[in-house]
Amino acid sequence: MDIINAKDINQNILEEIKQNAKGCIIRPSVAVIKIGENKKVSDLIKLQEEACNKVGIYFRIYEFDETTTELTIINKIKELNNDDYVNGIMIALPIPDKYNEKRLINTIQNSKDVDGMTDINVGRYISGRKTIVPSIALAVTTLLNENNIDISGKNVVIVGRGKAAGRPLISALINENATVTVCHSKTDKLKNYIERADILISAIGDYSAITPDMIKDDTVIINVGYTYDEEGNKKEDIDTSKMSKKSITIIPSDEIQTTRITMFLKNVLMCYNNKK
Amino acid sequence: MDIINAKDINQNILEEIKQNAKGCIIRPSVAVIKIGENKKVSDLIKLQEEACNKVGIYFRIYEFDETTTELTIINKIKELNNDDYVNGIMIALPIPDKYNEKRLINTIQNSKDVDGMTDINVGRYISGRKTIVPSIALAVTTLLNENNIDISGKNVVIVGRGKAAGRPLISALINENATVTVCHSKTDKLKNYIERADILISAIGDYSAITPDMIKDDTVIINVGYTYDEEGNKKEDIDTSKMSKKSITIIPSDEIQTTRITMFLKNVLMCYNNKK
Repeated sequence: MDIINAKDINQNILEEIKQNAKGCIIRPSVAVIKIGENKKVSDLIKLQEEACNKVGIYFRIYEFDETTTELTIINKIKELNNDDYVNGIMIALPIPDKYNEKRLINTIQNSKDVDGMTDINVGRYISGRKTIVPSIALAVTTLLNENNIDISGKNVVIVGRGKAAGRPLISALINENATVTVCHSKTDKLKNYIERADILISAIGDYSAITPDMIKDDTVIINVGYTYDEEGNKKEDIDTSKMSKKSITIIPSDEIQTTRITMFLKNVLMCYNNKK
Repeated sequence: MDIINAKDINQNILEEIKQNAKGCIIRPSVAVIKIGENKKVSDLIKLQEEACNKVGIYFRIYEFDETTTELTIINKIKELNNDDYVNGIMIALPIPDKYNEKRLINTIQNSKDVDGMTDINVGRYISGRKTIVPSIALAVTTLLNENNIDISGKNVVIVGRGKAAGRPLISALINENATVTVCHSKTDKLKNYIERADILISAIGDYSAITPDMIKDDTVIINVGYTYDEEGNKKEDIDTSKMSKKSITIIPSDEIQTTRITMFLKNVLMCYNNKK
């Protein structure tokens, strides 16, 4: 069993980002918008802030509670769009249902859309144009490539079709010449797809859908999704703890998360260069 | 063996389009841009023109030979963008390699982008927003739904990842709750995917990739792609002529083409209503 550790990879990329940030005339800066309370969101923002501090990127957080009107948030985004000292803007998802997520996201100026979520950036990406790629998709392809795991021609099964992970992963993996299968809650006989995967990516945030017995021995398992149980323990989509005997390769969700943060920083620099 | 005939379905939708067009204060109008010479493009445009005439949509064609500069074509598109009497604009693909296809397509105003090809319309579609859907994707889902062929939960294998057919079909079928597998030229062991398909869609324009022996007995075969051989005979991606004994369902490329034209007309009316 091979469990991928992304520490060295991230350290190298972070060092590069740090040097690039140092070379910037004005300190690169990113603004993250947080709406309501959500443990995953809070964790992510904490990691983003720490990482920004380490590499010399200025981090601003704008927090709104659930009583805030949508217009107030839209006006804040517009203000950030017009602020020359802000290079990247991200709305930390998920946000409470009462807000129109698409409207908020599409208020972000495309050149500042640091996680590649506006309609036009999604379209550019799908059409194969050079653009900002969502950090989770970048994290997955980076960890595969840096660990010399072949993607081209392989049977890649993605479970989940959400906007932040599943959908951008489809394009990312097709662009890397994988044969991609997209499974989701409506998939009939999920096991039939899982058991044939060379690379299995779970991005559902549900630990009951995929059981270890479905997975063949030499699969590369990528845990993108995770949840917290009632006691606050982190539960990855695929429980790999009892898989010791199998000749599998595992990329744990923590490594995806860490790398995702690094890719987020990389995207901030890309936004910084966009403005020039 | 069941060979789908789309005549009745198209007739009904065309009748509806005709009535809707009649109800418009100004006659709806579409402009198609043709660059260079290509048999498939010429055939498509001829069918579009005939169909427009039948339902009362004003059809304009702008032809450019390969010596035309890109700037000339861009200026024509801008002129059409500003022309209140033009509701939809389409560049008939493929165009000669010397032109920057993406730049030309993205010059089209989004509200007039009748085949849903601009980056922002592609992104809107992927994000599940109400927008213009490429006519080929609409043709496939319409023929499946109108013939009561279940899509939800089914194993749909799409061969081809091109911009006009493969890519929009991925989103269209995922949105219909299919489990979608995308195969292409780099796919290893194509047969392994084909033989498990409930619905097999070929959109490659190559009749040598998929052979009838790969296909299981109860598959729904959709021939989107076709080519012409040296004698000018049409060759569908999948040769279904020797499949008489199998319990398969076939949607021939001619039916897809016919329905695609109908969907194009439907999209012209959608563009007409966009402007209001």
